[in-house]
Amino acid sequence: MTTDSSSEPLIDIDRLKRDILELAKIGQDPATRGVTRLGFSDADMQARSWLMTRIADAGGSAGLDGAGNVVGRFAGAADLPPVLVGSHIDSVPAGGMFDGTLGVLAGVEAMRTLGDLNRTLHRPVEVIAFADEEGRFGGMFGAQAVCGQLTADWIHNAHDVDGIRLADAMQAQGLDPMAALDAARRPDDIHAYLELHIEQGPVLEQERKNIGLVDGIAGVFKWIVRLVGKAAHAGTSPMHMRSDAFMGLADFAHEISRIIEEDGSAHSRLTVGKVELLPGNPHTIPGEVIFSLVGRDMSPQVMSDLADSCRKVLSAIARRHHLKFEFEQLSWLEPQGCDAGLLQVFEDHADRLGLSHLHMPSGAGHDTQFMACLTRAALIFVPSVGGTSHAPDEWTHWVDAENGANVLLRTLAAVADEGTPKTA
Amino acid sequence: MTTDSSSEPLIDIDRLKRDILELAKIGQDPATRGVTRLGFSDADMQARSWLMTRIADAGGSAGLDGAGNVVGRFAGAADLPPVLVGSHIDSVPAGGMFDGTLGVLAGVEAMRTLGDLNRTLHRPVEVIAFADEEGRFGGMFGAQAVCGQLTADWIHNAHDVDGIRLADAMQAQGLDPMAALDAARRPDDIHAYLELHIEQGPVLEQERKNIGLVDGIAGVFKWIVRLVGKAAHAGTSPMHMRSDAFMGLADFAHEISRIIEEDGSAHSRLTVGKVELLPGNPHTIPGEVIFSLVGRDMSPQVMSDLADSCRKVLSAIARRHHLKFEFEQLSWLEPQGCDAGLLQVFEDHADRLGLSHLHMPSGAGHDTQFMACLTRAALIFVPSVGGTSHAPDEWTHWVDAENGANVLLRTLAAVADEGTPKTA
Repeated sequence: MTTDSSSEPLIDIDRLKRDILELAKIGQDPATRGVTRLGFSDADMQARSWLMTRIADAGGSAGLDGAGNVVGRFAGAADLPPVLVGSHIDSVPAGGMFDGTLGVLAGVEAMRTLGDLNRTLHRPVEVIAFADEEGRFGGMFGAQAVCGQLTADWIHNAHDVDGIRLADAMQAQGLDPMAALDAARRPDDIHAYLELHIEQGPVLEQERKNIGLVDGIAGVFKWIVRLVGKAAHAGTSPMHMRSDAFMGLADFAHEISRIIEEDGSAHSRLTVGKVELLPGNPHTIPGEVIFSLVGRDMSPQVMSDLADSCRKVLSAIARRHHLKFEFEQLSWLEPQGCDAGLLQVFEDHADRLGLSHLHMPSGAGHDTQFMACLTRAALIFVPSVGGTSHAPDEWTHWVDAENGANVLLRTLAAVADEGTPKTA
Repeated sequence: MTTDSSSEPLIDIDRLKRDILELAKIGQDPATRGVTRLGFSDADMQARSWLMTRIADAGGSAGLDGAGNVVGRFAGAADLPPVLVGSHIDSVPAGGMFDGTLGVLAGVEAMRTLGDLNRTLHRPVEVIAFADEEGRFGGMFGAQAVCGQLTADWIHNAHDVDGIRLADAMQAQGLDPMAALDAARRPDDIHAYLELHIEQGPVLEQERKNIGLVDGIAGVFKWIVRLVGKAAHAGTSPMHMRSDAFMGLADFAHEISRIIEEDGSAHSRLTVGKVELLPGNPHTIPGEVIFSLVGRDMSPQVMSDLADSCRKVLSAIARRHHLKFEFEQLSWLEPQGCDAGLLQVFEDHADRLGLSHLHMPSGAGHDTQFMACLTRAALIFVPSVGGTSHAPDEWTHWVDAENGANVLLRTLAAVADEGTPKTA
């Protein structure tokens, strides 16, 4: 088949909307409409069962792999490595109804649309809903399992913030935790991975674009920084005799825009999200401040430059304010690029659908960042109203969901019809 | 008698030291040597009993007034309004052994020294240890009672941070709370008030001066400021699309030195001592920050200028960062000057003793600030090691305690020998 014809398929937004609203009811708080489907919780497993039924109704053959990922296989004309399409259906506590869900259900809708047209693609397609993308147990469990990045040790030790072990949570759902190691797949066994996701940020809305073509997922480092001065009575200590730890932080925060201008890029982010002052008394000069610093960029070199610059600026400020400066690097995750060929196919189909688009990085993590280690992988975004996500008032207009699903459908069909696995 | 003669008296530092160390044992934690004598606690009342015995041993006639203040009266040659000398012997939790105590026991030692010399002063002297100077119940209870600033309503409603009512705490010690209203004295009934206190700050030590001549007690205002932006994913929100409440605070803190340079004085202090970020997650842009701002100066006009400037700077920063700015003024206490004539007598005697001195404000509150509303009042400081106070490692070298006590003794003798009550 060809996708570039008068018979180019279009998804049915009413049907997709019904699915999204129906799935939203599982784990939904009626008062806030927030969705809570933590990885391997009862609500999460109920949603997986519901999804498997939906896939079967669409003509696929659905099951759970060893990691608890829902995999719904649709046969192709040839028995070749499949194209994977999907995202996740677990959620953060009191999250929104589009985060992850849109990408999975748009995949189901795409296959349903093709089924209604009696179109069989050249390659098989697998609609996949990865387990615990939101990292209840500290990683992107399902995607890491598929990419062969898990170890028995990690599975054994992983636990959530309440101390509940991953192994116990899986066993409580009748799953064998160590079977997650069997979910690993080989690069040769997969043709490509495609993902549609809501942006969860304000860029597409503010730039008035329909589709975000995600060049890659930003790398991220996380520090805990400690500045130690001397607590003292705020009345008896003249300004010039103080070792005020908070003023050290304030001076650093003030330098953040300069650090990014000098050593960063347009994609750089530096965020102080958590601050603790000791002793934290209005009448006492803060003797100590502990704060988080999270840096992001698309380039490993820029990330490294930003980190160096932060360290130098903090050292200089500590000397100036007579403070002791310590930091601990809690994590360092390298940036991950998306496949340029697949992005071009996404872009071509957005153009043919008359949709505006923008190349952009993803500041948030997505299953694509692990799948890109295994196979050609690419991600597109649709706008989030107000940039809001991970909250009950997360929203994406239905027309934007429809646009994204149509670009996904056509790209999926084109990639699954590729004659040879290794070229776009 | 004259104090300017070869027979000028000097206190006995060994005797004063014994008293300070003995009183320190009441309420002292053996491990940290921290002193805990909260106002109207058992330890506080035990210390008051001990003090009354000490005063009686020194030839005074001691009792508690209606507010629980220890008043030890030493008769003068003439039945004139007395000179009051003192401070307080209650403490903060795990405080030091000099805070307040030094001034009271130096007063006792002064009268003991004069008694040993068989010197009778022209006027009576009252050594006073004010109740609850540290404000367990929200004020400077004893000094406010003497100055007639209490009301029945206030006494009825006052309570500590644990919810224990002042009235209950007093009754548990056999005291009638409403009798505190009877402790009020008339300006005509008091000739002057003199106080010696440790500095509780670093200035005298750093400036290598023996005696601080306190021109007055700084006024203080306390605000709670709230900046509200928009919480969002720190990865998905570009730097220029953020409404980061913490960055508003950081910009404000950075302006503090400029605000003081432009609108403040050498005595101005602006302190951010408490900060709360919401939601306080490393990966989330802080949507809200709530912080304390405490300002101090010696001039009501400068305080007002500082407050105006802070408000303007915060408003401008809020506009720049797209934040909402609110503040609540929790308190505003005017500065209180000390009596220049009495300070001159303190200074003269410091000079005759060969002690270096410095005019300075007090950034902390003291009983003098209320007594100054009632009568001529003045306060001197001796150095605190490292500026530390309200902590077990508060310390003042014995030679500094001796210097302060000698200046107090001679000034007390001079003021009590003044022929007419209304001139220095």
